Formats: sequence, structure tokens, C-alpha cells
Amino acid sequence: MLNILFSAQPERWDEYEDLLNSAFADAGLEANLSREHAPADVDYIIFAPNGPVTDFTPYTKTKAIMRLWAGVETVVDNPTLTQPLCRLVDESLTNGMVEWVVGHTLRHHLGMDDQITKQDGVWRASIYPPVAANRPVTILGIGALGAACGQALHQLGFPVTGWSRNEKDIPNITCLHGTDGLRAALLGAEVVLLLLPQTPQTENILDADSLGLLAKGAFIINPGRGPLIDDDALMAALDSGQVAHATLDVFRTEPLPPAHPFWAHPKVTVTPHIASGTRPETASKVIAANIARGEAGQPFRFLVDRKRGY
Amino acid sequence: MLNILFSAQPERWDEYEDLLNSAFADAGLEANLSREHAPADVDYIIFAPNGPVTDFTPYTKTKAIMRLWAGVETVVDNPTLTQPLCRLVDESLTNGMVEWVVGHTLRHHLGMDDQITKQDGVWRASIYPPVAANRPVTILGIGALGAACGQALHQLGFPVTGWSRNEKDIPNITCLHGTDGLRAALLGAEVVLLLLPQTPQTENILDADSLGLLAKGAFIINPGRGPLIDDDALMAALDSGQVAHATLDVFRTEPLPPAHPFWAHPKVTVTPHIASGTRPETASKVIAANIARGEAGQPFRFLVDRKRGY
Repeated sequence: MLNILFSAQPERWDEYEDLLNSAFADAGLEANLSREHAPADVDYIIFAPNGPVTDFTPYTKTKAIMRLWAGVETVVDNPTLTQPLCRLVDESLTNGMVEWVVGHTLRHHLGMDDQITKQDGVWRASIYPPVAANRPVTILGIGALGAACGQALHQLGFPVTGWSRNEKDIPNITCLHGTDGLRAALLGAEVVLLLLPQTPQTENILDADSLGLLAKGAFIINPGRGPLIDDDALMAALDSGQVAHATLDVFRTEPLPPAHPFWAHPKVTVTPHIASGTRPETASKVIAANIARGEAGQPFRFLVDRKRGY
Repeated sequence: MLNILFSAQPERWDEYEDLLNSAFADAGLEANLSREHAPADVDYIIFAPNGPVTDFTPYTKTKAIMRLWAGVETVVDNPTLTQPLCRLVDESLTNGMVEWVVGHTLRHHLGMDDQITKQDGVWRASIYPPVAANRPVTILGIGALGAACGQALHQLGFPVTGWSRNEKDIPNITCLHGTDGLRAALLGAEVVLLLLPQTPQTENILDADSLGLLAKGAFIINPGRGPLIDDDALMAALDSGQVAHATLDVFRTEPLPPAHPFWAHPKVTVTPHIASGTRPETASKVIAANIARGEAGQPFRFLVDRKRGY
């Protein structure tokens, strides 16, 4: 019998209890899922930020921490965490991100906002947007999410360039890496998607210099992490016209305070961290399958590399 | 030397003259392209509605009429037209339509309008839309354009049903046909895309009865032809909530008159017939290639079947 501790916000328990128990049973696991195990008895922790566990020291026999949402920033630099940490890589989460990214890319590509907001009875002369083949898209961060978005945009005809810290080779995406690669990836880009992890190296990766490399009138779409963008530099680029519009789903402070200038800026669309969310049903299955791997003596999937920070 | 008559609105001449002449040269054709050939000397007519040619009788040696835009309604029932008529099937036109259709489908799927129009400083709790896999899309009309849109939506995970008058079999699309098939295709659909040709049989295909089959709160997207929809029935369905929103690119009268209630309706987005347009560069190449086929003794591509009306 495995003791599995559920450590997330209290309101998540009702959402997850039955689904996790079903998933454990389906995976052939005998599990005792609870919010109140004695730390020394816990085999696995299902973990979300803002739950009760903040000190991992007393969890001496815990074999792994399973994240409930994507991202690891709030836990990876916790000095008490010595146990293996697994990210949540969930297909429905990836699919949701692809839908959001492709939707907002096409929204900007097609100039939809004007049509949605200007229903004034004026039949404006048809000026067609460039076809997607003439609209280069650059994705900073081509992990599982970035690569999936890149494939979907490629299918629609967009030329896709991807940038990552280390060299990668992904079909249908022009892959660049390193500092020189970053300049080349941004130069002339008309749409920039941010899907990098948040690390000291990626903070402010879009600053005044890098924004200046983009095509005039580029679109910025950030479903990644707030600190990837230097907010003041972005505001200046919007005001100068260097950036035509920014659609931002993540921020340095969330919820974004009502007084933040992003809310009122006509060239910024704020969305409340909804680009993609964990769907309880599929997340439960992914976590159960990973615990079953560990119990069968196989290596855990989606292990976080502490040195890289993600 | 082929005499090729250009019959379109005068402002199109500047746009097309050089591109067509280059395309003819690239296709190995010796062509004399003009707006003023004597009718009896004309080998081919490049034709758009609202151009000078309305009576095809004097064009006695003309081998084919090459349409410059998609659609054939304004010419197919011209009783003087006895020459072969070719539609324009242009990849960039198909691609443009796919971009527009996928963009507006995702816009409605993700509920973007609220986010675009309500930038009021309120961070609304995250309610995720269903994943695409739980959002059934039905396409009425699965010719070249409809099928291409269906494939792109399938790639993004939407379950796609297609309906056509005659039986079809297209990978990744549940193909239905005929009167019974139409009911089945519409029943429970959450997004309906209209890409049918306009014929007596398709007029008002979305009427009060068929709108009543859809899932409550469905989205209607019409980049096809205005008369496919019974406008009064649509207004009633919008007002009752049976249809959540309609995005309409085509109308019975274009430009849509400023007083038409669609403009002011909060659940209607009017776009000015821009879902897809002929791009001169690629259209010129397609037309030149088709003329070259005819001159080489091969059958023309994209011939209109007069009996079917498209």
C-alpha cells in the first residue's frame, strides 16, 4: 500500500480525489491517497504551489514529488527539496496551449481585433493579410510545448524558427541556439512566442535590444513566464510602433494589479493565465502512470534537472 | 500567338498585367494580353464579374473562360456562355481560407472576444474552454476549400464532420451526405462552417429547422455565400441563445448596407468579404498553367459542370 500525500490548495481536493483514485486503480496501484499522512510514511507527494507542504525535510522515504501543474519555478529552488521532482507533461495541457497559441497567432495575423471591435456599418475595402507563408514566426523555447506549437503553425504554412539554449533538431522548425542564434532568430520576426522556462538566463530575454531586432510592427505573444519580458522596454516598443500588439497571459505579479499600465494600454491584451491549464482527468492519469513506472523499477519520466533549473 | 482578353474591373489591370505576362512567358506561351481584342480573335478570356464582357456570343473561337476569383455564380447562368468555364483553384486562396476559418473557429472556441473587449483590470478566475477534442465542428460543403479547412481543424484536435450533396470519402473527416445526412451532421454541432456553393438546393440551408438541430450556444461561421443562411431565422436563433455568435463574411447584398441589423447585433461579427482573396501572383501562375494545358491538348483543369451549377 502506497501512501500518497495530496498537497495542493484545499479546493483542488474535491476536484482530484476521485479521479486520482480511479487512475491509481487503473494503473494497478494500491494507494492510500490522503491530505494528512505522517511525513515519514509518505511514498509520493502530489504537489502544487500554495499547498501545505513547504518543507520537504521530514519526507524521508518519499520517492518522488509529482507536480500537478506545468512549470517548476516555485519549488525547484526550495533548498529542502532533495527528492526527485517530476514535471507534469500532459497531452491535454499541450493541446490547450497549441490551441491558445495558434488562435492568438491567427488573430494577430488576420487583424481580427479591428473587425471584432469596429462593427460600425462601414464596409472597408478588402486588403488581404500576407499569407502565412510570408509571416515568419519565432518561438523562444522549443521544449514539448514550444515544439508542438511550432508543428501546428508549420501545418498552417507559417515559417517557424525555434530558439533554445542548447542545440536541437526538430522537423519543420529552423532550430537555432546560443547567443548568436538568438539574434538570428529574432531578426525580422513578425510574431514572437515565448515558451521558455524561467531561469536567471532567460529573465528579460526580450529587452530593448532584442525587441529592436524584430520586424517593425511585430506581435509578441507570451504564454510562458512573465519575467521573460522587460516590461518597460515592451511598453516603449509598443509606443514607438516597433511592436504592434502584445498578448500577455503571464506576469511578474499575478493577478496583474488593476493599476498596471498593461490593462489600459490599447496595444496590450491581458489574459488571466489561461493559455493552458491542467485538466484533472488527464493529469491524474499521467501522474498514476509515472508512479507505476517508479514502482516497477523503471526511471521516472519528466524528471527535473536541478542544475538547469527545469 | 494567343490573343488573351483581360475582362475585369479596370483597376485590376495594373495589378495583373505584368504578373500575367511573366506567368505566360514562364509557361512557354506566346501571348498577346490586352483589354481590347476584337471578339472574334480571342483565344482565352480572363474573366471577373463587373468587367466589360457580359455577352459571350461574339467570342466564336474562344477556347475557354478563365475565372479570376473563386465562385462562378455571376457567370454560370449567363445564357450566352457556351464556352468551357474554369474556376480559379489557387493554393494561396485555399491557404488564406484555411487561415481565416481556423482563426475564427479558435477565436470562438477560446472565447477571445471577451478578453479582447474587456480589458477592465479584473483578473477573472480561470475557466478553461473544453479542449478541441470535445468541440464538434461541422462543415457544410467539403470541396477543395471545405476539405482543406477540415484537415487543418482535425490537426488541431477538433472532431470534424463534413456534409456534401453527393457521397464523399475524405480522411479524418466524418463524411455525410443527402437530406438525412444533413440532419445528422448538424445535430449537436458546436461550430458550423458554411463552404457550400450557392445553388437553388443550398439556399437557406441554415433555416429555423436546421439551426434548431445545433448544440445550444453554437457558433456559425460563413465564409461561403450569403444566401446559404435564412437571415431572419439566424437573428431569431441569436436572440434566443440557440446560436451564441455568428461571424459572417458574405451577404445577400454586398457591401452589407449600413442599416442592416447584422452590423449592430452584439452577437454578429460582419467582415467585408475578406475570408480569402485571390492573390495576383499565384492566380496568374494557375491561369497560365491551365492555358498551357489546353494548348498542349490536355483537358482543362477546374472545369465547371453547368448542370450542377459549380
